[in-house]
Amino acid sequence: MTGNVEILSIGNELLIGKTINTNAQWLAKRLTILGLHVRRITTIGDDIEEIETVVKEALGRKPDFLITTGGLGPTFDDKTLRGIARALDVRLGLNKEALKMIQEKYKVYAKEQGVEKIELTPARVKMAKLPKGAEPLPNPVGTAPGVQIENDKVLMVVLPGVPSEMEAIFENSVAPAARESVGNVTFFETSIGISGLMESELAPLIDRVMHDNQYVYIKSHPIGAEKTPHLELHLSTTANDSKIAKSRVSRAIIQMIDNVQAKGGKTARIKAKE
Amino acid sequence: MTGNVEILSIGNELLIGKTINTNAQWLAKRLTILGLHVRRITTIGDDIEEIETVVKEALGRKPDFLITTGGLGPTFDDKTLRGIARALDVRLGLNKEALKMIQEKYKVYAKEQGVEKIELTPARVKMAKLPKGAEPLPNPVGTAPGVQIENDKVLMVVLPGVPSEMEAIFENSVAPAARESVGNVTFFETSIGISGLMESELAPLIDRVMHDNQYVYIKSHPIGAEKTPHLELHLSTTANDSKIAKSRVSRAIIQMIDNVQAKGGKTARIKAKE
Repeated sequence: MTGNVEILSIGNELLIGKTINTNAQWLAKRLTILGLHVRRITTIGDDIEEIETVVKEALGRKPDFLITTGGLGPTFDDKTLRGIARALDVRLGLNKEALKMIQEKYKVYAKEQGVEKIELTPARVKMAKLPKGAEPLPNPVGTAPGVQIENDKVLMVVLPGVPSEMEAIFENSVAPAARESVGNVTFFETSIGISGLMESELAPLIDRVMHDNQYVYIKSHPIGAEKTPHLELHLSTTANDSKIAKSRVSRAIIQMIDNVQAKGGKTARIKAKE
Repeated sequence: MTGNVEILSIGNELLIGKTINTNAQWLAKRLTILGLHVRRITTIGDDIEEIETVVKEALGRKPDFLITTGGLGPTFDDKTLRGIARALDVRLGLNKEALKMIQEKYKVYAKEQGVEKIELTPARVKMAKLPKGAEPLPNPVGTAPGVQIENDKVLMVVLPGVPSEMEAIFENSVAPAARESVGNVTFFETSIGISGLMESELAPLIDRVMHDNQYVYIKSHPIGAEKTPHLELHLSTTANDSKIAKSRVSRAIIQMIDNVQAKGGKTARIKAKE
């Protein structure tokens, strides 16, 4: 297993810029820290054919995980499962386990609202119609269950678009399998601030330090403009052992600071994360 | 022209969740308001082969515009133009107009810093190496010019990843062409807040109102949880005339409010934008 992941964000609100894609960022960060590698994030609208096409494309690239967010709720525009069923050429059918999860939720809601019963309307039953072969994942926060489907060595995980629900299902049902898939791997990252050098002056120094530290990835992010330079230099690595990861990054940082100061630049530590 | 757009966001920082993709959201919003339709947003890392692959895929879908952000600067990991050149099977070469833009910038920077000259190092000249047939777009805020390349009826626009530079080049050099490509089209959107109805109760009402108002797109966004429902209902349309757009959305809103109130829900106006 190499721990490759693709994220597929589904929702017209993302394509019209109404909503910023915090779900993709949250997942990318969590997966990276778990030691996996997000290779691609694709955002499309609530369109069955488009979902079908993009899921087929992603499955063809054989990631270890394909994680989708959005389009799992009760409304007409929640089309994710229909699109996935088409991509896998399987039918959607009532999943008894999912239906049970949903029934239990509405029982609790009815109790909380002091009514005898909340009827299972077609819109509510819709959330229990899963592609054949899929398993529901409990939603500790909301109503629509997550969904998991294995297809030709790709584990597809289908999560709702509401951030709190997406995060809760991921933590409970996805994170353990994701971590296990890559073994005991740690991601370590840290940043240093640099002033007094333009990004174009820094470029050859980064080249040199990356050449000497082949497992460390270094990227510069301009904070000021090229002419009044203030740069953030982000160093990161993934290793089997957190001590190894830290010492690799530390060695690269020391070398980088030496190089920057030799060119007349100033450095400042920004933060360290594990 | 149908005004279809694809956005391609390039940068490892997006795939590890270090940075949230504000550029894609900004572009999606601006393009939508200009009357265009963003069909897909793809995020990939700083990898030449990956850029080549994704650009070829996007060109194959024949959008009217393919807009990329990121990877245009002077550092080793700014690989966008190399990836695009490979996708188009053309060489990268020194573009005189781009070089002139960059030279002018460094003259100004030298003057501001009170030095006689800032040398044009290879890292700086790199920003003027464009795919054959490309045109540079002036960068009013930073150093690296944007780039425009026409390929088989797709207009590719290559923008830097620094938001202020991306936005400035877009407004100056891209927005006028984008607006012209779709003619005189207006996007109109507004939202209403709904409480006291669960999303699953609202679903059939949305279906009905969308059926009666075929040019209006309605989407519900849960704000609370399904059990303590507070929902935002977002209504939008695109039309040749802003009055038509507004009146279409208004009619759908009135119908929606009637339906919601008949079911015992409460509504509140959230905002109106043009």
